[in-house]
Amino acid sequence: MPETIIRVDMKKDPREQDQLPHNRWHPDIPAVVNTRPGRDFRVELMDWTGGQIRNDDNASDIRDVDLSRCHHLFGPIHVDGAEPGDLLVVDVLDIGPFQGHEWGYNGIFTPQNGGGFLTDLFPEARKSIWDFHGIYATSRHVPGVRFAGITHPGLIGTAPSHELLARWNKREQALIDTDPQRVPPLALPPIEQGALMGSLTGDAFKRAAREGARTIPPREHGGNCDIKNISRGARIYFPVYVPGAKLSIGDLHFSQGDGEITFCGAIEMPGFIDLHVDVIKGGMTKYGISQAMFKTSPVDPHYSDFIVFEGIGVGEDDTQYYNDVTMAYRRACRHAMDYLTNFGYTQEQGYSILSCAPIEGRVGGVVDIPNACVSIAIPTEIFEFDIKPNAAGPRHHVNSSNADLARAR
Amino acid sequence: MPETIIRVDMKKDPREQDQLPHNRWHPDIPAVVNTRPGRDFRVELMDWTGGQIRNDDNASDIRDVDLSRCHHLFGPIHVDGAEPGDLLVVDVLDIGPFQGHEWGYNGIFTPQNGGGFLTDLFPEARKSIWDFHGIYATSRHVPGVRFAGITHPGLIGTAPSHELLARWNKREQALIDTDPQRVPPLALPPIEQGALMGSLTGDAFKRAAREGARTIPPREHGGNCDIKNISRGARIYFPVYVPGAKLSIGDLHFSQGDGEITFCGAIEMPGFIDLHVDVIKGGMTKYGISQAMFKTSPVDPHYSDFIVFEGIGVGEDDTQYYNDVTMAYRRACRHAMDYLTNFGYTQEQGYSILSCAPIEGRVGGVVDIPNACVSIAIPTEIFEFDIKPNAAGPRHHVNSSNADLARAR
Amino acid sequence: MPETIIRVDMKKDPREQDQLPHNRWHPDIPAVVNTRPGRDFRVELMDWTGGQIRNDDNASDIRDVDLSRCHHLFGPIHVDGAEPGDLLVVDVLDIGPFQGHEWGYNGIFTPQNGGGFLTDLFPEARKSIWDFHGIYATSRHVPGVRFAGITHPGLIGTAPSHELLARWNKREQALIDTDPQRVPPLALPPIEQGALMGSLTGDAFKRAAREGARTIPPREHGGNCDIKNISRGARIYFPVYVPGAKLSIGDLHFSQGDGEITFCGAIEMPGFIDLHVDVIKGGMTKYGISQAMFKTSPVDPHYSDFIVFEGIGVGEDDTQYYNDVTMAYRRACRHAMDYLTNFGYTQEQGYSILSCAPIEGRVGGVVDIPNACVSIAIPTEIFEFDIKPNAAGPRHHVNSSNADLARAR
Amino acid sequence: MPETIIRVDMKKDPREQDQLPHNRWHPDIPAVVNTRPGRDFRVELMDWTGGQIRNDDNASDIRDVDLSRCHHLFGPIHVDGAEPGDLLVVDVLDIGPFQGHEWGYNGIFTPQNGGGFLTDLFPEARKSIWDFHGIYATSRHVPGVRFAGITHPGLIGTAPSHELLARWNKREQALIDTDPQRVPPLALPPIEQGALMGSLTGDAFKRAAREGARTIPPREHGGNCDIKNISRGARIYFPVYVPGAKLSIGDLHFSQGDGEITFCGAIEMPGFIDLHVDVIKGGMTKYGISQAMFKTSPVDPHYSDFIVFEGIGVGEDDTQYYNDVTMAYRRACRHAMDYLTNFGYTQEQGYSILSCAPIEGRVGGVVDIPNACVSIAIPTEIFEFDIKPNAAGPRHHVNSSNADLARAR
Repeated sequence: MPETIIRVDMKKDPREQDQLPHNRWHPDIPAVVNTRPGRDFRVELMDWTGGQIRNDDNASDIRDVDLSRCHHLFGPIHVDGAEPGDLLVVDVLDIGPFQGHEWGYNGIFTPQNGGGFLTDLFPEARKSIWDFHGIYATSRHVPGVRFAGITHPGLIGTAPSHELLARWNKREQALIDTDPQRVPPLALPPIEQGALMGSLTGDAFKRAAREGARTIPPREHGGNCDIKNISRGARIYFPVYVPGAKLSIGDLHFSQGDGEITFCGAIEMPGFIDLHVDVIKGGMTKYGISQAMFKTSPVDPHYSDFIVFEGIGVGEDDTQYYNDVTMAYRRACRHAMDYLTNFGYTQEQGYSILSCAPIEGRVGGVVDIPNACVSIAIPTEIFEFDIKPNAAGPRHHVNSSNADLARAR
Repeated sequence: MPETIIRVDMKKDPREQDQLPHNRWHPDIPAVVNTRPGRDFRVELMDWTGGQIRNDDNASDIRDVDLSRCHHLFGPIHVDGAEPGDLLVVDVLDIGPFQGHEWGYNGIFTPQNGGGFLTDLFPEARKSIWDFHGIYATSRHVPGVRFAGITHPGLIGTAPSHELLARWNKREQALIDTDPQRVPPLALPPIEQGALMGSLTGDAFKRAAREGARTIPPREHGGNCDIKNISRGARIYFPVYVPGAKLSIGDLHFSQGDGEITFCGAIEMPGFIDLHVDVIKGGMTKYGISQAMFKTSPVDPHYSDFIVFEGIGVGEDDTQYYNDVTMAYRRACRHAMDYLTNFGYTQEQGYSILSCAPIEGRVGGVVDIPNACVSIAIPTEIFEFDIKPNAAGPRHHVNSSNADLARAR
Repeated sequence: MPETIIRVDMKKDPREQDQLPHNRWHPDIPAVVNTRPGRDFRVELMDWTGGQIRNDDNASDIRDVDLSRCHHLFGPIHVDGAEPGDLLVVDVLDIGPFQGHEWGYNGIFTPQNGGGFLTDLFPEARKSIWDFHGIYATSRHVPGVRFAGITHPGLIGTAPSHELLARWNKREQALIDTDPQRVPPLALPPIEQGALMGSLTGDAFKRAAREGARTIPPREHGGNCDIKNISRGARIYFPVYVPGAKLSIGDLHFSQGDGEITFCGAIEMPGFIDLHVDVIKGGMTKYGISQAMFKTSPVDPHYSDFIVFEGIGVGEDDTQYYNDVTMAYRRACRHAMDYLTNFGYTQEQGYSILSCAPIEGRVGGVVDIPNACVSIAIPTEIFEFDIKPNAAGPRHHVNSSNADLARAR
Repeated sequence: MPETIIRVDMKKDPREQDQLPHNRWHPDIPAVVNTRPGRDFRVELMDWTGGQIRNDDNASDIRDVDLSRCHHLFGPIHVDGAEPGDLLVVDVLDIGPFQGHEWGYNGIFTPQNGGGFLTDLFPEARKSIWDFHGIYATSRHVPGVRFAGITHPGLIGTAPSHELLARWNKREQALIDTDPQRVPPLALPPIEQGALMGSLTGDAFKRAAREGARTIPPREHGGNCDIKNISRGARIYFPVYVPGAKLSIGDLHFSQGDGEITFCGAIEMPGFIDLHVDVIKGGMTKYGISQAMFKTSPVDPHYSDFIVFEGIGVGEDDTQYYNDVTMAYRRACRHAMDYLTNFGYTQEQGYSILSCAPIEGRVGGVVDIPNACVSIAIPTEIFEFDIKPNAAGPRHHVNSSNADLARAR
């Protein structure tokens, strides 16, 4: 059995756990446990909010979530013998929810909490609860859809060195400085308030908390990549920046579509992850690697029939953007969401489906100036009814007056 | 046998073909042929440059290409009974090179010709020739790699209405006006020089040529999407804007990676495409569709083992961008190209592989502010050697002093 | 959470469990629990031998196994409302080993215990232990191979009616009567010795035990199909022959190759299975179904590169058989096993790989008289080294003097 | 372009071709052309009957077919440098129909012509014509179904040595001798009548024709394997028994289901095949290979949702067979065919679908004595309607009074 090297008690607050979580990236955060290359082990994790979201039909928890406390990362794990310049090889052996906690949530955040990809259109807090049935997920808030989850850690990475951390802080502050009052902000600077720095205390805590990088963006070390294909069965190669590599993990997703567009974002859950670690000595230099990379899994869900929506880099108001994949992605998402209303879904339900189901979001062309072009592919098999266009036209299979995303009350 | 309704003579100049091609989008370009719903038919096509590129080891043709003449589109095809507001359903039944012309090319363009996605880094004209061996492609300029092509039309679309065309011209000119002197330009305005307007002549030609939209960008009608998955076996749903739909096709690709990053871009070829057309009456309204969409093919190459590179929206100089998928894509491409040098490839060979092979470019997260995150997945099976990281480190399997992309001489 | 409706205590003998298992098919065996359509639930299971095999390097347990006690089936589960003539729809939601019991075994049986598919060649008891690493399996007895398991219940079925049971007994006895003294026997008749009939006692036990069908062969109701694709994520449709359907399950496999050729056979394990049940009223008649059928799962491991061995219906001594798929399968297995010796494997290790890994065994032609033709496809990615033929010839990557299947000591 | 090294003239009789076909296996048949390792080339082929079957609605041609003339094989091709003991490596680069001949046929043979797998049930000659639409096939005789073909040569192999040929003849005659009068016969002995021996004439012809092995059964050299996965994109490894290897090809299939159960069998067609050859010197010894083997293609159609039928080794009259995969396959076929009648298909239409569409026929268990168990998986996406069981029961989507397999008139 893979030894459980990090345990959480779901009845306790994050700050009461035996192995304290952290929510900033900093090399000084002490490792909570040691392991060695060649071992399998289990890590238990709270969800990214540390338990702030409930399984109910009221989105007030989504509305009121305290993001300064997020993400709750578990670790760091010190890997014996790993040294700066090595590659840490991490096999994702298994992932699952805790027994008795076979559910997760997807939320639409308000702009005050960073919003989602379409926060200008959907500024209201909303929530959907997803029930797990083994490999499948369904939601009482989004009827008519059932899919195999592509389960993965949204966030996994090694600790930065002091030098790398300083670079991160410098470049992100420079961006913030271009529009410091923006809502949502352009980026989140280090902030002592809400900081969890593992077992650090006193001055060491203060110093690290004031420097520690926030965990929302992915960076060179991996981190919050939200890449759905770093899934059960994948192998990840991480740069090592500090002795022992100091691997931390958080933000388990039962499933996610490419883009994680609602921000909160996938089907979020607490649970366990089983890992195997190994080290390629000097691997960063041998292979010239400065950014985490990975190998895919043979058990990712493999649907074969997809309906695909295109998006180009032109705003809804017909503003032309220059090679803007982000705008193209927005438009493709909106085309897909509009299309799903044909079957009775609300826009919010469509938003949730794109965010949660195993959706493929691919870059088509990035050279056909001025229009970037992307595609968003939805497996047709995940619906209980046929969503392909036909001569008869669509039929409402879903009645959103019976079931829709929960609002805040 | 599917009747060949458009024929080209590869020995003739585009302007000498019996059924004249066009290189602008305009509703007044007369249909060259009629067909009706329910029919299979074949269309023959020159390559997108109209035969300007040779199968040799000199990239001067790439350097000197005349883009004002591109793309060479064949059609329009008038589909009987199709009316504005309908959906045109097009099945891509088959695609192939002409017998005796089993090769294609990939080029890196100079900035004067629009460059590629990484034109700041690779401003020099370069060329690789790819030989087709049935479903497979290999290149004397890029040894050690062999892959199954994901053959598709880079460009296929219906004619815009006058109203839609006016919108396109207006929004693109507005973008150009923000920096009119830029090289490469932000967008390409209508231009009479080089215009091919099918059989239009005289004043009708002049008027249409001065209004006709350039064919580089994809738009609502499909057009130059360069989406590799609109491949042999796919079904496309096009909005119909004009009576008869006026379907045009060009820019056949033997294969392409997501992004088509070298701009010229895929493995470009002349050849044939077999299509089947049908019409969903009133389909645009029935389904609320304003952008072309499609269904995938069951015979896309299905590799299962991928090595995946990540990219985040930070410049090489550590400039932090805001949720910039385009920059993230750039960085992922560069990580992949750097990695391939471990095995002896030049950067340019890597650029060509990413552009030509069945590479998956996926949007990871677009909400983890400020960093967009993307992934680029390369199938490991396409190489003659193992490209996965291992403890021994990489070995040079390819000797670029023997074979590299052709230069202009 | 799916409620656990059948629990086993792994420290106890099968006969001491609270919900007693059974090892015969008989309609009179009382249901141990009730459930109703629409529910998810968990069933815990001992391995098929009821705990007779140990995780060690001695195959004496395989040699001495008492098969009269096998398989240990858990259930029957009474599904409220299910009546003869209905179809019972069973979703396989999840399957896994017990925590702390992340291993399974594969055994080669002696002819006295029925042997395996190649028992004439491999009559000696042998054993391999397979360790589970999340979705993957490896074995200290079979180095160099690691694969994603295609986890499934080897045995799942509904209870026969008295009439159906009588038919089974009649036809199988008729076969036995053609050669009653054969070793191994042609079929196994009902036998009171070793019978476990759930909670039946006294005369009811005796009567049922003397009639109850042995559980080795698959039959119309499903049963011991050993079809690897009835896996995690599949949906099964069972004929219902008795009120409540009386579903029983056993023989969990972490993984299996088509054919399960060593008989004991897959990677055998105790563990849990999560199921969902539903009923199609009158479904047997509506669809004319007299044999269980199923729908595949989207998460079966999907390897894409296979090396494939052919077999034809000719004996090793050149005896020509008539359209004999069984003989063809034997020959294909042997070709594969011979081939694997090129890399240092023993024949027994190859036998075990074919039996345990996700091997595709397909019927090629069954009409090309007199030779049936089959193929056995092994995914190349499961080996740590390249097993494809090349000009240099094979190299021994595995040293069987260090590791081989365990013998009986 | 791959040079066409064997040409056929479809307007001519097989016996009038410039490069004469052969229909027996014999080492003395002279090569019609030479090639060398490393080359791509094209071979043109008549269909297996040499043009006896017409595209019409009358199965009299199927009824009256002259099988003594079949298969029509093209070659042998002499590969320079290939010697006995080598492995001939053949890449199947492409396969297609001739332009203007985009159709094929599937036939049910009478017992006098060998019948099919279920000839006792379907003794009447029947025919379906399949039209090719690029990668897809449809049939006016089997409406409601459309699938991507898995195009392959039913028959490809190297010439046997005199010694190997003698073994074949000996073992097959021994089988015939057990029941010489059987209809259909147990096997087909050499026969001078109808023999085509390429360019052999006179005594050499007579001698070879009297010894030459019939081409129906697959054998060690490959031959008529009818393995659908030896498809476009596959690589085959053949034993070499004679100098030059003498590769011959025939029996192109646009598509086939595992088992090719109607015998005539797949979708049969004339057309071209593009091949690449290479040689592994001494490969038979290096790898201990005595039977052809192959590697799969990345472009086989990949459907993901299958409905699967089981079969066990019990006759329809409840006779119990011993581990009889052939009988199990029969029963699985029949269950599938019965099921398809739910939607309006005739049994013959179902027979044809199983024989032509990309059906997976897998061996489940071959050790669960006495019942072998097999599965037959049909992709649900190939039907225009949903064939999965549901609570409402099936509906007739197909009206066989409008369209059914052609009868002989």
